[in-house]
Amino acid sequence: MNFEMILAADARLSGKKRITPLLNSPFIDELVGRPTYLKAECLQHSGSFKFRGAFSAISALKNNERRKGIIAYSSGNHAQGIAMAAKMHNIPSTVIMPADAPKIKIENTRKLGAEVILYDRYRESRELIGEKLQQKFGAVLVKPYDDPNVIAGQGTAGLEIAEQARELGIDEADLLVCCGGGGLTSGIALACAENAQNFKVRPVEPAGYDDVVRSLVSGRREKNEKNPGSLCDAIVTPSPGILTFPILRGFCHSGLVVTEDEVLKAMKIAFERLKIVIEPGGAVALAAALYHSEFLDSKTILVVASGGNVDPETFAKALSFC
Amino acid sequence: MNFEMILAADARLSGKKRITPLLNSPFIDELVGRPTYLKAECLQHSGSFKFRGAFSAISALKNNERRKGIIAYSSGNHAQGIAMAAKMHNIPSTVIMPADAPKIKIENTRKLGAEVILYDRYRESRELIGEKLQQKFGAVLVKPYDDPNVIAGQGTAGLEIAEQARELGIDEADLLVCCGGGGLTSGIALACAENAQNFKVRPVEPAGYDDVVRSLVSGRREKNEKNPGSLCDAIVTPSPGILTFPILRGFCHSGLVVTEDEVLKAMKIAFERLKIVIEPGGAVALAAALYHSEFLDSKTILVVASGGNVDPETFAKALSFC
Repeated sequence: MNFEMILAADARLSGKKRITPLLNSPFIDELVGRPTYLKAECLQHSGSFKFRGAFSAISALKNNERRKGIIAYSSGNHAQGIAMAAKMHNIPSTVIMPADAPKIKIENTRKLGAEVILYDRYRESRELIGEKLQQKFGAVLVKPYDDPNVIAGQGTAGLEIAEQARELGIDEADLLVCCGGGGLTSGIALACAENAQNFKVRPVEPAGYDDVVRSLVSGRREKNEKNPGSLCDAIVTPSPGILTFPILRGFCHSGLVVTEDEVLKAMKIAFERLKIVIEPGGAVALAAALYHSEFLDSKTILVVASGGNVDPETFAKALSFC
Repeated sequence: MNFEMILAADARLSGKKRITPLLNSPFIDELVGRPTYLKAECLQHSGSFKFRGAFSAISALKNNERRKGIIAYSSGNHAQGIAMAAKMHNIPSTVIMPADAPKIKIENTRKLGAEVILYDRYRESRELIGEKLQQKFGAVLVKPYDDPNVIAGQGTAGLEIAEQARELGIDEADLLVCCGGGGLTSGIALACAENAQNFKVRPVEPAGYDDVVRSLVSGRREKNEKNPGSLCDAIVTPSPGILTFPILRGFCHSGLVVTEDEVLKAMKIAFERLKIVIEPGGAVALAAALYHSEFLDSKTILVVASGGNVDPETFAKALSFC
């Protein structure tokens, strides 16, 4: 796993991914107390950054490798990314999703052409189901974050941020990234280590699911207790990835933790001030900038809004909040 | 008023305006029955395309002309565009707004630094109030659409659409534009007449406020009856502009009319499929593509979403609709 793999993924994704805009608002600058820019990955194909990693991984396979299709497990955003990327390669996909994932994510994954297999996230192991299917059909399993080509794909967002920031004259920043298993954060950290060396990449997690933040402190892969389902469904993972953690440890600065109330308020502010739809898990980095900026060092804040796949009911809850 | 003025406005706006993305979704393509791309001007500074025209007009003034500040009247989006553009030029602005404009628009205009004067849209004339203030203070009045430099500024959106479409290999399209007084539509039509000659530019209006659509049929400036306030507050104008109408007549194809229910449904679809926030007046063009595509000729549909300044209550209404 190295920077050259990100460049190679970027070449494969050229003309396929959307170069998402870096948005800002004087209202948010005032709230954060510093110039703040948000990378709107909610506007990426399939509604989240996951399209990058999924397309990167599938496009890196040889034709005969991917002929039998793709298998993936996902709480929803990787599922949609895989479904869309598989369709663009004209190959079938099967996605294992928790039965209690947001409806919009399950429906969209099906409509994008994937076969969806639901499982009980409290009793069954998605990894085991995935392995069984893989053995049965001979399809390729594309993991949501512990896959070098997935990390490389997510890293292309980091290449874009570095370039867009340079165009704005930003050469030093705290860069906050919504973090689950660490695929996006490690990819961006690797990209910035090469292309934006004065950016401090920091993972942000919801309270109760701060495995990466704690692992960066302790130096080993910490686990979350088995909590009931979080509002931030997209980034609830048991512990940092085996591949992602060494990268996070090598290239990230200390992380931040936000509450669900802060997440809902951040979603509303993104609605009011940036006119974008972000889901709870995609709003944690903005929430950290808005409500915990005392932990940030730089004159400029960069924030990644990682996805926008949220049910209307949850979004309406954020709109009516506070 | 000519194409060269749009190029000049584009040069003044360079590095100031946001080049808004052209978004698409396989779900929307399926609903419309054709490849459909949406120009997300809701992501423009100040939350609507109006920033382009406001900045264009103010930047075209000489220093001594604009020293005494800017006056404008507006239902809200031009107000915010003027306030932001005036602030960027370090000059004061005063904006005359209807007392029943959406709260978010009045608040934002004030927070962006403008002095706001509220008037009763059923009893008072904003034009008269504007003229009096102009005489009293010697400030420059920037009209919302009947101003060549405003039209030229809005036309820069047309330059971007033509270029972005060309990059996607689109050389023929119906281009639907949300239309009030016609500033945006005429600017885009002028830009396309030069840079995208196979684009059929069509104004879209809400039922009951279809003055431009009817005027294009009759060949003269038709008026709307005095209706009570519309959901589509941003694009409720009594009749086509004096400057805009000849351009609309010369360069536009026949227009379309949509209902308020269609607008609410289009807002929800933009939320679900594109992850953007569009206001009712900014959703009429998308509504026309979704629900009246039988009137469209081309293989590809382009749609302008003109703004996103909508109260949370109205947006929640769209989310709970149907």
